[in-house]
Amino acid sequence: MSFRLAKYIPVFDWGRSYNRETLSNDLIAAVIVTIMLIPQSLAYALLAGLPPEAGIYASIAPIILYAIFGTSRALAVGPVAVVSLMTAAAIGQIAETGTMGYAIAALTLAFLSGAILLIMGVFRLGFLANFLSHPVIAGFITASGILIAASQLKHILGISSHGHSLVEVVWTLFQNLGDTNVITLVIGVSATAFLFWVRRGLKPKLRAMGMGPKLADVATKAGPVAAVLATTLAVWALGLDGWGVAVVGEVPQSLPPLTMPSFDPGLLGQLFIPALLISVIGFVESISVAQTLAAKKRQRIDPDQELIGLGAANIGAAFTGGYPVTGGFARSVVNYDAGAETPAAGAYTAIGLAIAAVALTPLVFYLPKATLAATIIVAVLSLVDFSILKKTWGYSRADFFAVAATILLTLGFGVETGVSAGVILSIGLHLYKTSRPHVAEVGLVSGTQHFRNVLRHKVETDDTVLTLRVDESLYFVNARFLEDLIQDRTTRDSPVKNVVLMCSAVNEIDFSALESLEAINRRLGDLGIGLHLSEVKGPVMDRLRKSHLLHDLHGRIFQAQYDAWKELVAPKPAANITANTP
Amino acid sequence: MSFRLAKYIPVFDWGRSYNRETLSNDLIAAVIVTIMLIPQSLAYALLAGLPPEAGIYASIAPIILYAIFGTSRALAVGPVAVVSLMTAAAIGQIAETGTMGYAIAALTLAFLSGAILLIMGVFRLGFLANFLSHPVIAGFITASGILIAASQLKHILGISSHGHSLVEVVWTLFQNLGDTNVITLVIGVSATAFLFWVRRGLKPKLRAMGMGPKLADVATKAGPVAAVLATTLAVWALGLDGWGVAVVGEVPQSLPPLTMPSFDPGLLGQLFIPALLISVIGFVESISVAQTLAAKKRQRIDPDQELIGLGAANIGAAFTGGYPVTGGFARSVVNYDAGAETPAAGAYTAIGLAIAAVALTPLVFYLPKATLAATIIVAVLSLVDFSILKKTWGYSRADFFAVAATILLTLGFGVETGVSAGVILSIGLHLYKTSRPHVAEVGLVSGTQHFRNVLRHKVETDDTVLTLRVDESLYFVNARFLEDLIQDRTTRDSPVKNVVLMCSAVNEIDFSALESLEAINRRLGDLGIGLHLSEVKGPVMDRLRKSHLLHDLHGRIFQAQYDAWKELVAPKPAANITANTP
Repeated sequence: MSFRLAKYIPVFDWGRSYNRETLSNDLIAAVIVTIMLIPQSLAYALLAGLPPEAGIYASIAPIILYAIFGTSRALAVGPVAVVSLMTAAAIGQIAETGTMGYAIAALTLAFLSGAILLIMGVFRLGFLANFLSHPVIAGFITASGILIAASQLKHILGISSHGHSLVEVVWTLFQNLGDTNVITLVIGVSATAFLFWVRRGLKPKLRAMGMGPKLADVATKAGPVAAVLATTLAVWALGLDGWGVAVVGEVPQSLPPLTMPSFDPGLLGQLFIPALLISVIGFVESISVAQTLAAKKRQRIDPDQELIGLGAANIGAAFTGGYPVTGGFARSVVNYDAGAETPAAGAYTAIGLAIAAVALTPLVFYLPKATLAATIIVAVLSLVDFSILKKTWGYSRADFFAVAATILLTLGFGVETGVSAGVILSIGLHLYKTSRPHVAEVGLVSGTQHFRNVLRHKVETDDTVLTLRVDESLYFVNARFLEDLIQDRTTRDSPVKNVVLMCSAVNEIDFSALESLEAINRRLGDLGIGLHLSEVKGPVMDRLRKSHLLHDLHGRIFQAQYDAWKELVAPKPAANITANTP
Repeated sequence: MSFRLAKYIPVFDWGRSYNRETLSNDLIAAVIVTIMLIPQSLAYALLAGLPPEAGIYASIAPIILYAIFGTSRALAVGPVAVVSLMTAAAIGQIAETGTMGYAIAALTLAFLSGAILLIMGVFRLGFLANFLSHPVIAGFITASGILIAASQLKHILGISSHGHSLVEVVWTLFQNLGDTNVITLVIGVSATAFLFWVRRGLKPKLRAMGMGPKLADVATKAGPVAAVLATTLAVWALGLDGWGVAVVGEVPQSLPPLTMPSFDPGLLGQLFIPALLISVIGFVESISVAQTLAAKKRQRIDPDQELIGLGAANIGAAFTGGYPVTGGFARSVVNYDAGAETPAAGAYTAIGLAIAAVALTPLVFYLPKATLAATIIVAVLSLVDFSILKKTWGYSRADFFAVAATILLTLGFGVETGVSAGVILSIGLHLYKTSRPHVAEVGLVSGTQHFRNVLRHKVETDDTVLTLRVDESLYFVNARFLEDLIQDRTTRDSPVKNVVLMCSAVNEIDFSALESLEAINRRLGDLGIGLHLSEVKGPVMDRLRKSHLLHDLHGRIFQAQYDAWKELVAPKPAANITANTP
């Protein structure tokens, strides 16, 4: 095996072809992304229950580390909504918001999550993310969006609420409704309405005024910046913080500090499961963004290398005052649309944010939390999409149940329960389906060598030959099913002299199923009935050759089902034509 | 739906045809089984950490209830070795052996286990037992046999030991080795040696002396009774109990008492998982014995009704001073061989045991515990069979790892951890395999309409048509795999104009896979490549018709792969013959 450094550190790959043009494109993208990220980072830190600067810090070191180790050229790594919510849910059970313990737990969570991602990457365990089915992810994101929006209502109203489930959040909100701060409410509602308008109505208007599509897009994305500027100025000019409007307040003017996560085994143990869930959810979200963007430019993403990139980013966050991060959809799309060509754009964004952290933080003193909450609400409500329920209901009930359960359990019991239940349920439903596989009795489609289900097609059959096509791998979960089935079909008084198992859909025969086949062969042998196999796939056959079955078989192995038909079925007069549904 | 009482209470079925001949056959079997069960019941109670009479009680009511509700005509229900060990493991963590709390926990465990079995039966959840693969069961039984034998050594040595794992048991035994009681050791070793000789050497000898095979078999099975009689007499005559030989001692002369399990929610919660494992293991053991015996007489076993029969038996045990029971292999085989024809034989056995409980219990006062331990050791060592390791190693590494892990974890961490890990590991390995399915590029076998792997068969192919046979259902676990695969095969500069997915082995396409197919179709469409499906199964096609895929597809659906070949491949001159391995 040849070891190529560029394989593990992709920067050596794209770095070699870096030139003036890519530099200028990357720089332009970086400026646009930086402007967008400042309010977003503050807002997500608020959502995670952390001081606002944590959001900025979490965008600096991680972005650089991902640029070195990641494979996507457009992915922008940093705080994202769902992971911020999951962070709040995980740490909320351990420490009070605003305490030192809370901040350290956030660092520890980022460290653990980074370590898990790195280990998954090194051992090439990226396939584990596949255990989250598309509908479960869609349901989880939708439910999380609702939970996040609900959790931000307290900032819009200027009151407090808490809890992991929708019921808790809404109930505590309702209890405190009397304390609503009207000025805060006005700011919050106006900001929300403005941002919704920017998202829905501004772009067509700008296009109608003759602005190019790309510029219109960038202007639209700058909406939150405008809202931040306007409301900050209003609070400052009118002294609204004196009227009870909660503001961001003092933010230290500093580069990201050097911080240490805790290595207390008790804390690590408590945070392990949340960190695992954050890692997997973060990885899935990140890789789907990265793959979508890479496909547009015919680039390839290496999922296992992505794990290493994200792992490095999270470990970076743990040591520089951040919290768990991942590749974000909104920021990556902006980065891509703004013309970023290499991960260096990310590094320039990091520099921009570092400058902001040192120079601009005093400017956000008067920024109302309600405005940040408004940017979060508008951003996450675009994630809410119940159409997955309708789509899966029409296509597959099992998928529908998995997604419905994920949504309900996430809303009802929080993110960790919701996503775990979704995974367990999808695996359970899949296993249940394979435990009762579809089995078709097949016959010959006249004039061809093709065999189809006697109940669906007009086919030739023969009374003495029963040909069954089992539409599933034979393995322990359905081994007994097959025994029962064959016993059912042959102990009734029947003229059957030969049973052919057409194995075109049997992708595996495990040891349990092998024992079942041996039992079936023995029983059929006692009844004087032959057992034959046809169309056994290469890899399955390789394995059967190592067993006794082929030696003991009261019958033959046929390469094609048509060979079995020619051999076992008497010449034409004995064959019948069944014509059920055509 | 017609409701037939006989379906739920099988006694109404076989009861109608009961006559004098079946009566006499059943009575003879009952006498033989009763004699065998007396020492066995005492021994298994000892293994479970319960007073000896609990073993007798656990054989009376359960046997009658199973006779009413069960479907097997030969199954004998009562205490068995593995379930006794699991009972000791479950309750040992909650109460001290010999205390009232221990006995009540045993009743509660039987009640919970009965309730779980009944619920599984009513909701027809018998398929859940399929999640235990054959190799995992074999490994678990083997490891349990070793654990049980090791746990009985203390009685042979007359010392004490404890623990759930082999290391603990052997270590505590070793620590107390100095206290060994020599007379106990002599009794224990002689009894063990005698019983091994009876099992291995006696039957051939009796046959050689002209005894019929059936009688020789029964005489062999009476070995434990002979050992019990001889050692009891020796202890009584020589007053060995005064020399420190532990004896069974006073056993109440009574019919099974009416007892109540505890309904304390805390205790029920603690015992739930152990009860679930005992239920599933007991059910699997019982059903495989029942099916083996039923197959010999062409009778049918209804697994869901068996759950009800075993559930009733366990609930019976809970209210009559017993502990968890199931259908035992040894006792059922003796019952069957002795000529039992209906479940009534079980009822007569129960009467025999009831008489024993009232009349014979004083006789076991001087029975040495070492003799009981010897009967257990000899019985369980016949369960130990490591050949499953060799068999699975040769056939399937995944099965081998599952069985090896089950054995090691059972020995190392006890029965509950072992069997749970076995189940989780087999499911995990199966999912892992399906996440990276075998994919074959196929071509036409010359002179037929049959398509096979180009790497294994001599087939015709065409440069412009790539036909892939994916050997697995397409579902969330491998959805991304397929996307990557097709991208790999088509982005390289290739003359491919059409991709055909031959779906003969695709038994399901879930919503995640549908979305992947749509993405693949879109990407291939962008490249000007057609995507076609062939040999899609009926149930899969039914579902695809409900989606947009068929409408959006840049290609066609072919009933047979040969139809696709005829349509897409240019006339002969363009086709090549590849001849790799034949």
